[in-house]
Amino acid sequence: MTHHPIRRASARAGASLLALGLAAFAQIAVAQDARKPPSAAQSDPIANRVMQDFPPPPDRIVRFGDGSSSQFPGTRWSFNHIRELGPTANVWRGSGAAAQLPRAERDLDTIAFATMDGQQVTFGDLPALTYADGLLVLHKGAIIYEKYFGAGEAHRPHIAFSVTKSFVGTLAAMLAAEGKLDPAAPAVKYVPELKGSAYGDATVRQVMDMTIGVKYSENYSDPKAEVFDYARAGGMMPQPAGYNGPKTFFDFLVTLQKEGQHDDAFAYKTSNAEVLAWVVQRASGQSLADLLSQRIWQKLGAEEDAYFMVDSIGTASGGGGLNTTLRDLARFGEMIRNNGRFNGQQIVPAEAIADIRKGGDAAKFAKAGYKTLPGWSYRDMWWITNNANGAFAARGIHGQSIYIDPKAEMVIVRYASHPYAANGVNDPVTLPAYAALAAELMK
Amino acid sequence: MTHHPIRRASARAGASLLALGLAAFAQIAVAQDARKPPSAAQSDPIANRVMQDFPPPPDRIVRFGDGSSSQFPGTRWSFNHIRELGPTANVWRGSGAAAQLPRAERDLDTIAFATMDGQQVTFGDLPALTYADGLLVLHKGAIIYEKYFGAGEAHRPHIAFSVTKSFVGTLAAMLAAEGKLDPAAPAVKYVPELKGSAYGDATVRQVMDMTIGVKYSENYSDPKAEVFDYARAGGMMPQPAGYNGPKTFFDFLVTLQKEGQHDDAFAYKTSNAEVLAWVVQRASGQSLADLLSQRIWQKLGAEEDAYFMVDSIGTASGGGGLNTTLRDLARFGEMIRNNGRFNGQQIVPAEAIADIRKGGDAAKFAKAGYKTLPGWSYRDMWWITNNANGAFAARGIHGQSIYIDPKAEMVIVRYASHPYAANGVNDPVTLPAYAALAAELMK
Repeated sequence: MTHHPIRRASARAGASLLALGLAAFAQIAVAQDARKPPSAAQSDPIANRVMQDFPPPPDRIVRFGDGSSSQFPGTRWSFNHIRELGPTANVWRGSGAAAQLPRAERDLDTIAFATMDGQQVTFGDLPALTYADGLLVLHKGAIIYEKYFGAGEAHRPHIAFSVTKSFVGTLAAMLAAEGKLDPAAPAVKYVPELKGSAYGDATVRQVMDMTIGVKYSENYSDPKAEVFDYARAGGMMPQPAGYNGPKTFFDFLVTLQKEGQHDDAFAYKTSNAEVLAWVVQRASGQSLADLLSQRIWQKLGAEEDAYFMVDSIGTASGGGGLNTTLRDLARFGEMIRNNGRFNGQQIVPAEAIADIRKGGDAAKFAKAGYKTLPGWSYRDMWWITNNANGAFAARGIHGQSIYIDPKAEMVIVRYASHPYAANGVNDPVTLPAYAALAAELMK
Repeated sequence: MTHHPIRRASARAGASLLALGLAAFAQIAVAQDARKPPSAAQSDPIANRVMQDFPPPPDRIVRFGDGSSSQFPGTRWSFNHIRELGPTANVWRGSGAAAQLPRAERDLDTIAFATMDGQQVTFGDLPALTYADGLLVLHKGAIIYEKYFGAGEAHRPHIAFSVTKSFVGTLAAMLAAEGKLDPAAPAVKYVPELKGSAYGDATVRQVMDMTIGVKYSENYSDPKAEVFDYARAGGMMPQPAGYNGPKTFFDFLVTLQKEGQHDDAFAYKTSNAEVLAWVVQRASGQSLADLLSQRIWQKLGAEEDAYFMVDSIGTASGGGGLNTTLRDLARFGEMIRNNGRFNGQQIVPAEAIADIRKGGDAAKFAKAGYKTLPGWSYRDMWWITNNANGAFAARGIHGQSIYIDPKAEMVIVRYASHPYAANGVNDPVTLPAYAALAAELMK
């Protein structure tokens, strides 16, 4: 077996900050590095005995301080073990029984489809092609497919990255439906500290839909991009010796300056999700972890606690810090698909789900130039396909996703550790796969 | 209400390293600082809104990097929130139902007793006197008393500090009873890396019973004490800029040198527990977290996952890193009291419990000079009272404890955040309280 030791990783494109909890949806230079990374099988952390033994050999150690936890192939282990690398806040599942997910498993692996690049592949090829750590499909609420790969385990939470944003957006939409948060109000109504920042004249709605004009770059190839300042402030990447910048998410957010106008175009920036998380916490009076636990996780009948990555003062990252099991992510997706109802109760107001599903302004979305997402829009931190099936999704870097297809009565959840920090490498495979699966299920 | 802001804490005695997961059982200079620390009520983190709000005011923030999480009164919050301060490894409870603890609550608060110092107090005074975060008493397996204080919550794990050692000792005794670990063998049989260290010529049994001659001081008043090297190596206290010392527990342990002879006297040193944890992991082939989960936590019917503090390569601290809920600690204690049987099954071999209960060499123990523990001994990392009731205990700094009284059919578990890092301040109150409670229950 070919070994690919952690420290001698040859895959480099977009690899330096993979564990940031960010989402580089911009079509960043995926093909800049012509060297092909090790395959999913070659980089399998279990087969390679990564972080096994006491201690593991030096080239099989993944740790935060030296950056190996954010570099492929260390990420193949670390994305399944975020808690072992830094501080986290627990999202308690409560003391009730788990909501049982019925099972009706069937063979999906032979379903054939063409990728956007024109390759003929099958659903069974999907995990290896996308470095999946776990893949689960619900049809009409029953598990029809559930498999784990690499270091993925059914009971162990995996980093959801920007799928987190859709949780924050859902909580905001809930609070709005309940009259506890006014989307039309200025953000400074809830967070006066934002006065003087880019968000000083923004509405909550603009934040929720990411139509904010803010100087914040998520371009990983630019070492001066604000994404690095964000990551250092939040403790997601090591702070260099003598670091004198902001030491919390909040302290970072108030430094952001305006660039362009609000309400002009959709512009995907993680800072917006962190601002919304701040607004939501102020509006509810609860920490993100406690709010998610009380309002959603305990009611879902989650099997396991979830958790957030937190900064040095315990503030959860609403931009990308949530970790859940795949099954619990499926429960959440199924609840959303059922207009907020799951486990025998209305968990999220139907009005909030309707607000998500109506989508955002497709013309503003188009300005962002996502080649793989024609006709899509963005609303309440969810991605709306506007396809014939009314599908919508939560999307996170390196292949995390919840894909909800109402017409096919299907929910797909996927956790992965793809070497490239761009959804542009996953979409050409996954989006056709999801469409093919939906078509099969509607037969 | 009088505020006692985190950064202006006036209580200082033994306060600098309170969150190390260590146990300063030595009668260190408790009375060195004549200033009285704020009372339990005055330092209540909830009343003082410590780590509330978004963000909390600067003087209500507790964080790892500036040491506030290891200084009283920050510890009153941090001991209940270790996970939010650093990396941890989860101890999975499994997917089964929690083992129900029957309830037969009664008023114990009026039970009167005299402290070792001759003060007349009641059981109801105990929590405030000892800065308890939670106190639970089982009698014949039923909860007769359960209360939480300060930041303590029923579902939230609390740091157990050196109570952790008794878990490691129990796991070692289990493996020994199963023939998977030979206490008579040299430690280097399992961990060859210890050759050349103080442990190079020690047996596993000597490690288990802490009769090791090693230069390792836990004297907090000496800045050169090895306890600080240990804490820095394990990431329990911040590493200073330019730090060049060991960066893992394992790397630290192999540096320890011999001082005196093995088998001569009981000498309480946390390094022994870390060495035993290393031996146990090598003998079982499992990490401490996985071993505890599989062998004990899943079988106990624990209500919540537990977790360990871990170092930079994910190694759990067997010396003081375990966090559990109080109820799960009670389940564990009740299982030990019932000779390893609980939740309908034999979890720990009865032979292992018998080995613990037979105790260590009282003459060797006496050489350590514990004034509050006359006639006690130490075996398998448990403290044996050798009193008429055959009581034995797990003990952790700042007031963590499991106290098992077989004759009274009683298990007391307690989590606390006492300002002083010495059990010598708790014993004069708690040991008479436990004896009085046992006497009452045997009426």
